[in-house]
Amino acid sequence: MPSTPAYAAPAAGKPLAPFSVERRDPGPRDVEIDILFCGICHTDIHQVRDEWGGSTFPMVPGHEIVGRVRQVGKEVTRLDIGDLVGVGCMVDSCRACEPCRHGTEQFCEQGVAWTYGSTLMDRKTVTQGGYSSRIVVDQKFVLQVPAGLDPAGAAPLLCAGITTYSPLRQWGAKRGDRVGVVGLGGLGHMALKLAAAMGAEVTVLSTSRAKEADARRLGAAGFEVTGDDAAFRKMAGRLDLMIDTVSAPHDYNRYLGLLRPHGTMVLVGVPPEPAPVAAGALIGGNRRLAGSLIGGIAETQAMLDFCAQHRIVADVEVIPIQQVNQAYERMLKGDVRFRFAIDMASLKQG
Amino acid sequence: MPSTPAYAAPAAGKPLAPFSVERRDPGPRDVEIDILFCGICHTDIHQVRDEWGGSTFPMVPGHEIVGRVRQVGKEVTRLDIGDLVGVGCMVDSCRACEPCRHGTEQFCEQGVAWTYGSTLMDRKTVTQGGYSSRIVVDQKFVLQVPAGLDPAGAAPLLCAGITTYSPLRQWGAKRGDRVGVVGLGGLGHMALKLAAAMGAEVTVLSTSRAKEADARRLGAAGFEVTGDDAAFRKMAGRLDLMIDTVSAPHDYNRYLGLLRPHGTMVLVGVPPEPAPVAAGALIGGNRRLAGSLIGGIAETQAMLDFCAQHRIVADVEVIPIQQVNQAYERMLKGDVRFRFAIDMASLKQG
Repeated sequence: MPSTPAYAAPAAGKPLAPFSVERRDPGPRDVEIDILFCGICHTDIHQVRDEWGGSTFPMVPGHEIVGRVRQVGKEVTRLDIGDLVGVGCMVDSCRACEPCRHGTEQFCEQGVAWTYGSTLMDRKTVTQGGYSSRIVVDQKFVLQVPAGLDPAGAAPLLCAGITTYSPLRQWGAKRGDRVGVVGLGGLGHMALKLAAAMGAEVTVLSTSRAKEADARRLGAAGFEVTGDDAAFRKMAGRLDLMIDTVSAPHDYNRYLGLLRPHGTMVLVGVPPEPAPVAAGALIGGNRRLAGSLIGGIAETQAMLDFCAQHRIVADVEVIPIQQVNQAYERMLKGDVRFRFAIDMASLKQG
Repeated sequence: MPSTPAYAAPAAGKPLAPFSVERRDPGPRDVEIDILFCGICHTDIHQVRDEWGGSTFPMVPGHEIVGRVRQVGKEVTRLDIGDLVGVGCMVDSCRACEPCRHGTEQFCEQGVAWTYGSTLMDRKTVTQGGYSSRIVVDQKFVLQVPAGLDPAGAAPLLCAGITTYSPLRQWGAKRGDRVGVVGLGGLGHMALKLAAAMGAEVTVLSTSRAKEADARRLGAAGFEVTGDDAAFRKMAGRLDLMIDTVSAPHDYNRYLGLLRPHGTMVLVGVPPEPAPVAAGALIGGNRRLAGSLIGGIAETQAMLDFCAQHRIVADVEVIPIQQVNQAYERMLKGDVRFRFAIDMASLKQG
């Protein structure tokens, strides 16, 4: 079992520090990847702080992985040495249950093998993520990163990209639709770029007027400050679809009022507490409040292909891994436009 | 303006008493209807007690109307004297806005003219409902009640029927689907009959074991008592669609856990207070919480035709109008299986 340099949280809430992770020898269907960049997702912070419970340590976070194929098992036909590839939130699933057969492996009835802080399908082998030099993943869970996508900017597509692309597709966002994006952070800026590329007229709803210039630059047709009641009156009943990326507490009922009849508000952010929903806010206008969790493997590949076609990547600030703990602090203050990507070459230096 | 015997609430919360309502002389596109039966909907109680605010008095409630055509205006071609017809929750709309053009008149951007406690599109003429001998309605808002449907049992189809039929159709209930019906009252027993007729395997979720025999008789394949945690464990992740008819407070998150991935829970009951919804309960499984408000005119006709084809009417207890106040009290105790229908012949006696 080759040992690979990595950064890990040694215990809940402790700073990440250099660590050595063991990766399996590649089997016949495995792909060994030299990791180039790994995006930092808010989930990484929740997990290393054990805020959702059940975290195991030491933990190597990271599920927005882009790298180059170093080695392939002999049954691997789809990928070759040197290919630019991605790994997202999942590294395996049962492949037999209905969700797996229907391309929604994230809902595997056996429980998916998450990229880190989880176990493989043997339910013994602990998974360790992308804040490391190398990873070995079954080919089915390895995505092809199309030519033309910047590798650092492509890394966040593997989580932030698919998390926002999937609900836009599920709810049929198309040319001429009015789409609202609530919150302009890592997820929100991807929702904005993707919805605009689908031809929608996108309005960003943000707590901060300071984000308007960025929103416009990234393709927003409209921008509204959510502290302002007038914005809610002006926008009432106008939106076909809303992607709500906010994980701070907020009043869903107010936002539901912005939807046209049969409109849908999709939650991809997780506020710390349940939020009150008035039945009347849904019944009036046959409105819908939905949730969406990442996306399946085939859909993730479709998202990457869509991004290549439309030249979309995340706006990233590239950092060396030695700055990961400061990056977490800055993310908690919203001080990043719009995603950190760790340059794994830095691991060799430290 | 011919005067018509009716029952009205003279003021908020006062008992209904005999009243005389003026109906307009039928215009060229109007249909004058001799009312045979009018169902009692929970909305009637909310409105006469002004529980939602904005009620005007005296108020003649009633929007589950079945009667026979007495007279037609000269431009009325679709209906003839003697036809059995129905009138539901709406008597007019603007007919020009997008919802009206798309057959969802209930969401008319000008505000629909509700059958009672509202105004016609002139925004002056107060509407009065079906607890009366006669009503005059524009032909577009008059439904044909197909032959073979019992007129008393058909009356509640005009509200309880369409309220449950529409979400089953919106969300594509079909043969083999597993549909949950939460609450077995006026709405719930219609949801059960309709979903079963669509070929779904229906499970009733009720607070009361005493309702199991009725549920089975009406076509339920399953029955679960919701006080029992074991029922929630057993049913977890099993349902494709749920129609939640309950207007008492209850925990939506618990019920959302019963849905399969991409499953939908549709609210048609309105609890008195907003209920907390955990984002995670929706995000896990890409689940949806939706609302649904009655249905459009064309869809209401489709529902009546479906009911005729499947020989479905509501289970009604027919009462004379002199018992309407007692009926309200009994409804509040859940003491009716499953809907009251007022026999309007009784108005001539009192």
